Amino acid sequence: MKVVNIVLVGFGKVGKAFFRIACEKRDLCLQQYGLDIQFKAIFEESGMLSSLNHLNIEDLLANNIDWRPGIRLDSVLEKERAGVLVECTPSNIKKGEPGLSHLHQALDRGWHVVTANKGPLVVDFPGLKRKAKEKHLALKFSGATAAALPTLDVALFSLAGAEITGIEGILNGTTNYILTRMEDGMDYREALREAQAKGIAESDPSLDVEGWDTASKILLIANEVLGTEFSMKDVKVEGITNISPHIVNQARKKGKSLKLLGKLTKIKDEFKIEVALSAIDDSNPLFGVDGANKGITFTTDTMDKVTVSGGKSDPRGAGASLLKDIINIYRSSFF
Amino acid sequence: MKVVNIVLVGFGKVGKAFFRIACEKRDLCLQQYGLDIQFKAIFEESGMLSSLNHLNIEDLLANNIDWRPGIRLDSVLEKERAGVLVECTPSNIKKGEPGLSHLHQALDRGWHVVTANKGPLVVDFPGLKRKAKEKHLALKFSGATAAALPTLDVALFSLAGAEITGIEGILNGTTNYILTRMEDGMDYREALREAQAKGIAESDPSLDVEGWDTASKILLIANEVLGTEFSMKDVKVEGITNISPHIVNQARKKGKSLKLLGKLTKIKDEFKIEVALSAIDDSNPLFGVDGANKGITFTTDTMDKVTVSGGKSDPRGAGASLLKDIINIYRSSFF
Repeated sequence: MKVVNIVLVGFGKVGKAFFRIACEKRDLCLQQYGLDIQFKAIFEESGMLSSLNHLNIEDLLANNIDWRPGIRLDSVLEKERAGVLVECTPSNIKKGEPGLSHLHQALDRGWHVVTANKGPLVVDFPGLKRKAKEKHLALKFSGATAAALPTLDVALFSLAGAEITGIEGILNGTTNYILTRMEDGMDYREALREAQAKGIAESDPSLDVEGWDTASKILLIANEVLGTEFSMKDVKVEGITNISPHIVNQARKKGKSLKLLGKLTKIKDEFKIEVALSAIDDSNPLFGVDGANKGITFTTDTMDKVTVSGGKSDPRGAGASLLKDIINIYRSSFF
Repeated sequence: MKVVNIVLVGFGKVGKAFFRIACEKRDLCLQQYGLDIQFKAIFEESGMLSSLNHLNIEDLLANNIDWRPGIRLDSVLEKERAGVLVECTPSNIKKGEPGLSHLHQALDRGWHVVTANKGPLVVDFPGLKRKAKEKHLALKFSGATAAALPTLDVALFSLAGAEITGIEGILNGTTNYILTRMEDGMDYREALREAQAKGIAESDPSLDVEGWDTASKILLIANEVLGTEFSMKDVKVEGITNISPHIVNQARKKGKSLKLLGKLTKIKDEFKIEVALSAIDDSNPLFGVDGANKGITFTTDTMDKVTVSGGKSDPRGAGASLLKDIINIYRSSFF
């Protein structure tokens, strides 16, 4: 049995969902994978909690606990035996902070990193990757690349040995939901309002509807899977804010469906990535991926196209994908 | 760098495709995974070949080589440093032979097993699994469970930590092709003949059209993923030989599509597996999986439904899935 020390930073929706799932799955982790998951500390804006194994989960999730202010993350990472830093602070894809500092602090002190936060990776993928590699540490981010929809896993594990020559994905639930509802006859504003009312879209939906969330994900997937070092300036980004019901109807009349796709294409040994509104027909395996669902297709040399779709698009799905990454770092073998 | 010794048994379509892909991917395996793949011997009915690294691949594939008769597999497995036995002889799901003996010989002598042959696993899954576990050896069979469509990988790796509560798959290309063509208006006989003419269906299609191939696959997937010990007698099997164009039309009129599904369901902590002709509507992610394509949906507790579809349904896809399993046994880490 291996003890896996966890320090969780960020206790919003995803951080809480991860904590709850890790507690629910404590016995499963022990029995099935021989992993004893131990929470050493949780950090959030108002402070830190430690000795979490003696806490009541429901109290903690209800915020009935006093957070200790003033304790520094790096001092905890220094003191405890290294395990996994789980990063769930909000994504800032321009500066990467505060996540970027957290990730560097963790790697510097010999901790593996599992993150749901796209920001640090979008801002400094090469630097973080290099540091993790030099120190033989894991830097895993299923939670930042469509979460419960397996994207990186499928590419790296299920397609091992195949050359990936193209990627195409519906990677953002909000935009896909809006596009589906526009196909049902709504206009953009109505569809966005409905998505917000249902908790699918955020109150400020700009990162989603302008394509930046999709751009971040296809960027990270490309860099991890193909070893490229793309940064955001290399991505041609299109959003859905300007589309009219007319365009949606035109596509429908031709039997096509409008999707906002994150795409990687290979043209003469050069890769290109972009986010583009695309009308696809029913020969495309992503045709049926509608509503808040996501999906991704990998085109390969030896295995043709492999498409994955589904996976819960909510904090619980994201939390489960963080636990998955932890298990896959520590499990002793795959047979 | 690790040297990976391979002994390949069975040099039919899949064995040849695997050999060709492994040769094509020699440099990739070295550079990307640090694996030096070395063929120590190939066995087929007429004899054995050794010292394969000095052979011309095209000659070998063209059968311009004299096979040495009379050499026993076990003597080669005994003599060479243990690596992976790759088993590609024809599936016999009643007796399991000759594959079953090959697998036992390999495991007894400390060789990992990667197999495209369903027979031995259908006949004695618990025995083989136990032996592999006791000896800390891999027993991998992506090639026997839909090959280039990743089924086991996704369940075991991408859904790690989630509880799988149901599985539903289109696992046989021949039956799915026939059903799709019947939706286009053909009758069963016509559609079968077309599938045979296109090389999708075999000249004796009974294992496919009577549902036994699907049954074998769902059986193996269930046993591996859920740790059950189902055998063929536990599976209720239905085929497609008795369906009339009328039934297909009726389904179509209701907006549904007929699929032959391998299903695992959980009813009060009890698992049940069956192969059943099912009319599914477009809310089912397998609805759009048509022609010779395959797909599988896993229902989980924390990640909702995850569906994979595609993957090349031919010997090359199967060969690529065998290479994938070998890489995933030996690769040093996943980060």
